[in-house]
Formats: sequence, structure tokens, C-alpha cells
Amino acid sequence: MPVPQDSQRVVIEDVSPEIDAGRYAAKRVIGDNVTIEADIFCDGPDALTAALLYRHADDSKWQTAPMRFLQNDRWHAQFTAARLGQYEYTLIAWVDHFKTWQRDIEKKFEAEQDIAVDLQSGALLLRAAAERAKGTDAAALRKCVDMLLGSGEPANKVAMVLSERTTNLVQRHPDRSQATQYPKKLTVQTDPLRARFSAWYELFPRSTAEQAGKHGTFKDCERWLPYIAEMGFDVLYLPPIHPTGRTHRKGPNNNPSARPGDLGSPWGIGGPEGGHKAVHPDLGTLGDFRHLVQAAGERGIAVALDIAFQCSPDHPYVTEHPEWFTWRPDNTVQYAENPPKKYQDIYPFNFETAAWQSLWEELLSVFTFWIEQGVRIFRVDNPHTKPFHFWEWVIGQIKGQHPDIIFLAEAFTRPKVMYNLGKLGYTQSYTYFAWRNTKDELTAYFTELTQTSVRDYFRPNLWPNTPDILTERLQHGGRPAFMQRLVLAATLGASYGIYGPAYELCEREPYERGSEEYLNSEKYQIRHRDLNHPDSLREYIALLNTIRKTNPALQQDWNLHFLTTDNDQIIAYAKYTADLSNVIITVVNLDLNYSQSGWITLPLADFGLDSRQPYEVHDLLTDARYLWNGPANYVQINRHESPAHVFRLRRPPGREQDTEYSL
Amino acid sequence: MPVPQDSQRVVIEDVSPEIDAGRYAAKRVIGDNVTIEADIFCDGPDALTAALLYRHADDSKWQTAPMRFLQNDRWHAQFTAARLGQYEYTLIAWVDHFKTWQRDIEKKFEAEQDIAVDLQSGALLLRAAAERAKGTDAAALRKCVDMLLGSGEPANKVAMVLSERTTNLVQRHPDRSQATQYPKKLTVQTDPLRARFSAWYELFPRSTAEQAGKHGTFKDCERWLPYIAEMGFDVLYLPPIHPTGRTHRKGPNNNPSARPGDLGSPWGIGGPEGGHKAVHPDLGTLGDFRHLVQAAGERGIAVALDIAFQCSPDHPYVTEHPEWFTWRPDNTVQYAENPPKKYQDIYPFNFETAAWQSLWEELLSVFTFWIEQGVRIFRVDNPHTKPFHFWEWVIGQIKGQHPDIIFLAEAFTRPKVMYNLGKLGYTQSYTYFAWRNTKDELTAYFTELTQTSVRDYFRPNLWPNTPDILTERLQHGGRPAFMQRLVLAATLGASYGIYGPAYELCEREPYERGSEEYLNSEKYQIRHRDLNHPDSLREYIALLNTIRKTNPALQQDWNLHFLTTDNDQIIAYAKYTADLSNVIITVVNLDLNYSQSGWITLPLADFGLDSRQPYEVHDLLTDARYLWNGPANYVQINRHESPAHVFRLRRPPGREQDTEYSL
Repeated sequence: MPVPQDSQRVVIEDVSPEIDAGRYAAKRVIGDNVTIEADIFCDGPDALTAALLYRHADDSKWQTAPMRFLQNDRWHAQFTAARLGQYEYTLIAWVDHFKTWQRDIEKKFEAEQDIAVDLQSGALLLRAAAERAKGTDAAALRKCVDMLLGSGEPANKVAMVLSERTTNLVQRHPDRSQATQYPKKLTVQTDPLRARFSAWYELFPRSTAEQAGKHGTFKDCERWLPYIAEMGFDVLYLPPIHPTGRTHRKGPNNNPSARPGDLGSPWGIGGPEGGHKAVHPDLGTLGDFRHLVQAAGERGIAVALDIAFQCSPDHPYVTEHPEWFTWRPDNTVQYAENPPKKYQDIYPFNFETAAWQSLWEELLSVFTFWIEQGVRIFRVDNPHTKPFHFWEWVIGQIKGQHPDIIFLAEAFTRPKVMYNLGKLGYTQSYTYFAWRNTKDELTAYFTELTQTSVRDYFRPNLWPNTPDILTERLQHGGRPAFMQRLVLAATLGASYGIYGPAYELCEREPYERGSEEYLNSEKYQIRHRDLNHPDSLREYIALLNTIRKTNPALQQDWNLHFLTTDNDQIIAYAKYTADLSNVIITVVNLDLNYSQSGWITLPLADFGLDSRQPYEVHDLLTDARYLWNGPANYVQINRHESPAHVFRLRRPPGREQDTEYSL
Repeated sequence: MPVPQDSQRVVIEDVSPEIDAGRYAAKRVIGDNVTIEADIFCDGPDALTAALLYRHADDSKWQTAPMRFLQNDRWHAQFTAARLGQYEYTLIAWVDHFKTWQRDIEKKFEAEQDIAVDLQSGALLLRAAAERAKGTDAAALRKCVDMLLGSGEPANKVAMVLSERTTNLVQRHPDRSQATQYPKKLTVQTDPLRARFSAWYELFPRSTAEQAGKHGTFKDCERWLPYIAEMGFDVLYLPPIHPTGRTHRKGPNNNPSARPGDLGSPWGIGGPEGGHKAVHPDLGTLGDFRHLVQAAGERGIAVALDIAFQCSPDHPYVTEHPEWFTWRPDNTVQYAENPPKKYQDIYPFNFETAAWQSLWEELLSVFTFWIEQGVRIFRVDNPHTKPFHFWEWVIGQIKGQHPDIIFLAEAFTRPKVMYNLGKLGYTQSYTYFAWRNTKDELTAYFTELTQTSVRDYFRPNLWPNTPDILTERLQHGGRPAFMQRLVLAATLGASYGIYGPAYELCEREPYERGSEEYLNSEKYQIRHRDLNHPDSLREYIALLNTIRKTNPALQQDWNLHFLTTDNDQIIAYAKYTADLSNVIITVVNLDLNYSQSGWITLPLADFGLDSRQPYEVHDLLTDARYLWNGPANYVQINRHESPAHVFRLRRPPGREQDTEYSL
């Protein structure tokens, strides 16, 4: 019977973060302190030492950070994700005989036992450390050995071996010969800050013309930039900007037979003028597009492009690469279907084609083409209908070259599929937020997204509306519903977005009763609006985005803490920075028909407040200030005013933690 | 940029059971239906087929079981663990184009669409299946192709392709060319039934003599077998039976200086007469021991031996294998310590010795020696003070040869260490049960043990007392406490044990106030008792063990369901078999000072009861019967009688599920 070559006594397990046994990278943003935790233990009472090893994937040398004991065999360490791209980390831990010996000699000495032999044992450990060391450390350690074996007082010897100096000396030269190295190399993907904190504005460029009935252009879009910047958005997301097909083109309101002059859907990509690497001639030129990207960038706005990997029947790929499509027995290309529904204006790619390698390469080149035009953010259309391995490969290829690129997954499908797209590399993901309305629904869903391991790989981006989603709540709730859902999106999520100007103008006519489609949807026709309509929420949005920018607590997701309220129509939650310098308490009336009031309970100790002292809450939406006492406080939300409070906690004077952020 | 060779579209993840990414085997007992679950999904709307592959590790051929869809992308399958030893399993899943096509053609046909081309597509899929098939199946599939392409009515063609016969035909010849095979081979360890369901009785053999003051023998033990069998125990666990040391031998009550004639602790193993493979001469011969094992076996009782890997200073190993011990600078062997405490009568092995291979081999041979004497169960002393990898190796070696062997880990230490011993191979484990007293404590702990993934690797064995543990509850609670803790152990745990006769005689004098040590502990001296004392719980124990044997619901751990009670001094829980033929409701008064009453709420639907019909609960402890109505029922537990009800649910007459188990 063979005996394994294995004398490692330390076990390292339950490492966090670790997604699917290390199969996927955890996500962080640049500058984050990445906390690594693990259960680390050995047999018996011996003391352990453990260390985190980490490096940027571009580096060859590992950095070391000591792990600290928490409780219940749990240890932790941190490193700073100082650069974009991938960091690797693993753990090492070993039985530390010198640390054990220090602990025991102290107890024996205090118990006034004879420690003569024990001191000799310690000398052996120090001598071994001296042999592992070099130079001055080796000499210093040998001096320790001499002193231990010398004729001094035991008390002095014990003081010397327990001193910080001796401890540090030995710790610099540990005996790792029997160390357990965690067998996996885990990874963290470091994204730009905007991956975590972003405010998106979706705009159909063809609807931006000054004159009603005209086709908008990239130049027209540029004129919208001040409007978008004033509202405080930092991502301008454009639906597909490519030439579109004519075959089976859809008319307004998804009419299957288009009339002459109907423009069809921007998602029916490809025509005689080109495909995924061309721009629709009515929008302008590629140069115009680059100019828009540049102009937006000057205002701090990144342009996000829609990537929809599907073709109109007129896409050049259909003739140039018939092998990338599915052919039916009647020698026609298989169009998209959801039986019995047919989408004859759309040809999906056949990812099971024998020519999948050339297909994958071409689709990768679509991304790199737009990256070369200055695009850093992609909103990917229906990624859940293309193979997971394709996305993992294509995102890996791009992030390997351009770690600053952001991919938003537009997948509204089953939860495990959405989560898998996050795991395999999507930077941000659409969520079910649009359909979570009650206090229970919102609490359960955002607890799952922000307080479980889901948060390591799935970054939510909250959209109260999209061109496909006009919820019943918005249809029936009027302007207050638009305000309420906006506050929820902007404060529950560090990233959120709206489809405008439909949102700020509170457009809410559905195509038909029971439908979430817009009437006269921009997906099939140009729209022209009066941005200065008195009902517009543009100023309310601007205020909310300013609050977000000036309160770092709202720029994170993991710091969400729901508060107890005694009224189910009132939801309350706090977000605060780790140093407690910024504490935001949001209280929202979920009832669209009535004013509501109730008591909310604040965990004052978590906020660093003394429960015996009054404190001020400052409503950043209305500028009202309230002096509160103790944990339970009364709130009243009048439905005719703002549907919410966004309180900033103001500490009693003299508290040093209070670093004011001016509004 | 290389493109990976990877066109597998299906993802398989979150497989259950899977312990630490497949590092350890899940535990089941022979005859169990092993349920395997996983999240399985692919991109897009295509239909999937998934299968479980499993085999006994001794077999080369994999068996296949179809996986069934549950909900939310979760699938499951079962296999029966029909043999002892290890089973291996993995999963395979693939996009099933024929199943997708069947689903779509049905919808299109119902929508009265033209399906001529679709039928041709189906013919291609059937032809491909025919090519994968042979013989009659191939011929049958070709007939299907002909019919599809023939001149028949579309309705008949659709009926044919959707028929069960065609479905089965195609499913026998699936296209797995792009299948995803789960990359890990997972394992299940199948143990004998006694690993899950056992009642242990710990007995010091040297205390079994008929005459007070005499040293008991194996022959004396044999005379105790009827007594132990009448109480219904099926494991007789003996503390170490080896020769003991003389150097630093302990006297009664752990007195550091033994007097002549003092026997010392059985755990001070080894003397001139031999070590771990010898028997203490005063107990008899190895032949006597084998006879005891045989005699016990005839009464359905397995003898469990204590394996304590430590030595007295007089153990032959110390002179024969000095390299297995730690030597101090003064050329003495390092004794056990917990500074400032010293245990000079015990020499631990040095598992970090360079000679660890010969040490491991020798310790393995200790187990195999006793297996050759007929022992099938080992209770291992303090396994948490020896390396985890040693246990994993030694248990693996033994279970590979003797899959029926049971190892009980006597580790009372931190939770993660205890769980790790379960993971690496221990069949059963001691628990914190002795110190879990309140309703909240018991509910939280047993929910963790029976309703979380812990149950896959950690099999609890519940001991209300041991020679080291006389809890305060027992010290102060008198006979009612012994009854109460016994009922809890015997009904919360499918495996439990007592240290007798201390337990049934309600011995409760501690060595000193605040100590959990027994006064005049048998660890250091012989005890002699009157087994017929009127206070003895022997009949109560016998009744409880009979209830356990005749009610299969009590022979499992995972079926534990706590019930709501409105009185925190009353804990109630149900256990029931999967077929609901046996439903046991235990109600315990946790208050040792007062009678208690309250309402308990029963989940009648879970029990298969109609809430409008009365039902009977039959107290198996007192034979009292109560007719109950609806979910909420009143219970009263008089502290002068039994501290508990153990109700068997009796269904209204005419219910077929009711298979009575006679008492």
C-alpha cells in the first residue's frame, strides 16, 4: 500500500471570492480593496501563519500580504486592485512552530514552571531560522540563540523571545517547507469605475432632428449633448446605427408590411450599404460618428453602442458567408421564430455551423472595429440567444487587450442564464428591477443581488423603462410613478439607465391594453418631442444625478441595508461609506394613489451615532432638514410632492467623521 | 488569436451533492435512492436532454438514468446505491434538436401554418438518427423518414412524429456529438445501514465483574450482553482494551500520583505486555475478545473498539521506534501538554517525523489487526489532534478493502475541524448535542445538521453523556433530565449513544462544582453498580429503542421538521417516511422544573392529512391516544410523568397509506 507524499497539516477551504470553484473571475473596479477570506486550520492546537499571494496577471512576481485571523477559523487579507485587468491570487498557510512555542513558553513562564529545556527547544527553532536567513538577519538570529543558551535570567530570555523585534525577525524567515498552498489560482477582473457607477441615457439618434419628420443624424445628436449632460448622465447609449434591411421590413407599430418611406427597425441590421461595421447613411458618416464620440467624451459622456448579432436578409454576410446561417430544405435561410411567431426580417447566425471559427473571428472583429472608432462600452442585445462559450471567448479576447471595455448584457431571461452571462464576463447586466414593485419584492431581489455571492459576478444596471418595456406601473401611475421608479433605480443601483426622452416626458401609452410595447414605438419610426414640456422630469433627474455624484455612498451596490418600516407602502434603505463619512437614507412611498406615513427604524450604532444625541437628516431632494432622536422616527410622504426622501445624515457638531460633501 | 475547439452550448453547474468541488465523497447508506440535481441550461430556446451517468467504482461500465426537469433550470435523477463502497457519477447534457423540432412543429400545426418545409427538416433529423442506429431501430427510423416525405396528410405525419413510439425510437439514438459532459467525476460512499441508524452503549469492560472490587473481563462482558440487548442497543463500544503504562500512571480522580494497585486510565496505552495490538491481561486473552465479539454479534450487537493513537511512556513503540516521537533537547520524549497543563503519562506521536511513512503504515496495521479479530466499528479518540491527510489516507485504505467498516470521530472541537473530519471520510461524528439545551439552540443546530449541505458529509451521533461529559443539565436536572435528554437524543438523531451504566442509573455527581468530570470517574478506577436499582431508566431506554426500531421515520436524519409551538419550553418536531406511511411527532418539555403546556401547529398537508377530518395521535411512550382536529393542538407535559410525547400519527380508517407497525 503506497503512502502519499503528503505531510501538509493545514487545510485551506471555502475561499471567498471564488466563483464556481475558480472557474470564473470575481469582479471589482480599479482602486477597490479586494478582501480575500478563507477557512484555515490544522489539526491540534498548533499556531498557524497564513498569507495571501497576489499579482497582476501582467506581472511575474507575487506580492504577499499577511492574513489576519477573524473568528471561527476564518482568516482574511486585502490587496488593492490598483490597475485594470486581471489579478491572480492564492493562499499559503503553514504550521508555525515558533509562534506555537512563543505562546506556550509565555504560559509556562507565567505558571512559574521550569522552562530550561523549553528554552533550549526555542534555541533550536531560532537556529533553524538563522539558517534560512542571510546577512544581518542571520546574525541577529544567531545572537538570539546565544542569548537563549547563555547564562541570563529566564525572565530576560522570555522577554527577548516574545519581543516584537524577535517576532518580526523570525517571521521574515518562516519555515514553509510543509506549507499548504491552495491548489487553485483565482482571479479578479478589475474594471474601470464606470463599470460600478454609471447613469445611462438611451437615445434613438434618428429621432434627434430639430425638425419634425426629418431623420436625425450624429450631428443632431451632438446638439443633444448639453441636454444629456445637464441631466447628469455619463453614458449615452445608441441603438444600432447600421444600415438596415428592406426585405420583410416592419412598418410603424410592428406592422408586417412596411409602406414606402417606412424606416424599419434599427435591429434589422445590414443592407446594400453594409453591415455591422457600417453606419446608416441617413445618420451621417463614420467620421461624424467619431466626432460625436469625441464631443460626448469632452462632456464626460461615453457613447455606448448596441451590438446585436443578427442580420436582415439583405446583410452582406448572407451572400458572402452563407455558411454562417441555417439553410432550410427549400434552400431558404432560416429566419428567427418563436413558434408560431415568425420574424422573417431577422436571420440569426447559426453558431453550430462547421464554420463557427470564422464566424467567431468575424464577430470579434465587429467589436474591435468599433473600439478603433473610440467606443469603450457595448450594450449587447439578447446575449442569451448566442452560446455562452462564444461570449466567454470574445469578451476574454477583448478584455485581454482592452481591460477598460464595458459590456452590458441585455438578457431578460431566466435567472440562472442571466447570472451565467455575468460569470463568464459581462461587466454589467440588465435586471428584473422593472417588474419588482412591492416592498417585499424589492427587498428580496436587492438582498439577493447585493448581499449574496451573486454580487461577485453580477453587476446590476437598473432600467425603469426600455424601448421594449413600458411597465404597467408606469402606464397607470402617471408622473408620480415615473418619479418613484426613477428614485428607486438611482438609489438602489449604483448603475441605472432610462430610455429617453420617453422617460423624462413620462410617455406611457401602450400599443394595446396588456402590452408593454409603446404605442408608435421608436423601434419602428422616428419620434419628435418637445423637450421643454412642463411635465418633463429633466430637472428632477438632474437633481438625482447630482446627489449620486456628490454622495459616494450611492456609488456602490454592496453597502445596501434595508431598514425596518411599519408600513408596507414605505420602503427605506441606507447606504453608507465604510468610513461612515457619507450616510444616505432613502425612503420611498410605493403607493401611487395615496400619501403614506409610518415609522422607520435606524441602526444608529451602524451609522456611528450615539443614540442619546439628536442628529439631523437633510432631504437632498427638497432641502428640508429634520432633527431626529433615537432609532425610530416618523416619516410622511405626500403623494403630491416628491414620492421619496433622500436623506443625508448630518452628524451633531464636533463629530470628526463628518466630511461634508457640498451639493 | 486562437479560437477554442468548443461548440458545447449546454452549461451544467451547481451539481448536488458535490462537496468542495468534488474533493470529497458524499455519504449514503446501502439501498438509498441517491438523488443528483444540477442546473442545466443552454442559450436560446432549444430543448435539452440530460442524463446521469453512474457506476460502482468496481465496475467499468457506466449506467445511464434520464434526468427530469424540475423548475428554474434545475434537473434531477436518481440511482440506487445497491452495493457498499464507492459510486461514481457525472452528468451529460445536450441540445436536442429533434425534441426542439417536435415542440415547434406541434405549435405550428396547431396554428395551422404551412409546415411542408418543416416536415422536410424533421425528415433530415430522423435520417440522421437512423444513421446512428442499427438493425430494427434503423429500419424503423427510415420508415418514419419515408412517411414524412410521402404523400400522406400533414396531420398524420405530425401525429406520427409526436407519438411516444417515435420519441422513444429517436431518444435511443441521440446526437451527443456536441454534448457537454460535466468535467468532474463525483463520488458517493455507500456505508452499511448501521452508519445511519445505530444505538450505542459505552461500557468499561473492567467494571463488569460480578463481584465488587474485582477486575472485569471479556467473559464478564458477555454476561452483560442480555442486559444491553434488552435495552435495544446494537453497538457495544469499549474504551481501550490494551495493556496500560505504569510511568506517571494516574490514580483515582486523575490524581497525578497513583498508589500501588491503582489501574490508571485505559487511554494510557502500552506496557510491557504490548501496545495497540494487545489486550490487557486482566481482561483476558485475544481469544476471549474474539469470543465476546462473536457472542455480541449473535445478539445483533456489534462491538466497537476505541482507537487512541497515543502511547504511555512504557509502550513498546517508544523503544522500538523512537523516531516516531518528538525528542526534547534533554533527550527525553515530549509528553502531551496544554500549557501550563502537562500530561506526562501520554506521549503523542510526532506526525511530522521524517519517518512518517512507517508510522502511517503501522497505525493502519492497528486497524487491520482488529478488523481481523472481527471488529467492524471504530470509535477514534481525538482525531482532530492528528493530521487530516493521515485520516483521509488511512480511512481510504481501509474502506477500499472493507467498505462495511464504520469510523466514529470523537472530536469535540471547532465546527470546521469537526466538519472536515466528516468530509475526509469519518462515517459518524460526535456533535455539540450535549450542550444544546434550549429550543432555539436545538432548532438551529439540528437544522444546520439535517437541512443544509453539511448532511452530505457529517453524520451526527448524539451522546447526552460520555465519560468526559457530565453536563450541568444532567448534574442539576435529576432523573427527569436524563429522561428528557435521552428522548431528544433518540428521536432527533438516527444514531445516538449513552455511556452506561452511568446514564441509566442517572449518575450525576461531578468531580467538583463547575466540572463536567464524573466524581470517581471510571476513567481512573473500576466502578461497581446495582443494575436493578429502582431508579434505573433501563425500561424507558428499552421502550425508546423499540420505538426507534419499529418506526422507520426515526431511522433517518434528513426528514427532521421542526414544528411551531407557542411555548419556548416545548419543542416539537416531526419525522416521516417519504411515503408518509410512518409519521412520528415528538414533543418534549424542555423545562426540568415545571410542567408545561402549549399549542403546536402541524403541517397537515405535509402529512397527507385532510384538515377537515380528525386524526389520532398515539403516544408510543404511554400508549395514550388523542383525537386531534386541524393543525393547532394543545399539549400538556406533566413533569412527574414522561418529559415527552412520542406520537405516532394514526390516520382515519380507510386511508390506504396507513401501514401499521406493531409495537
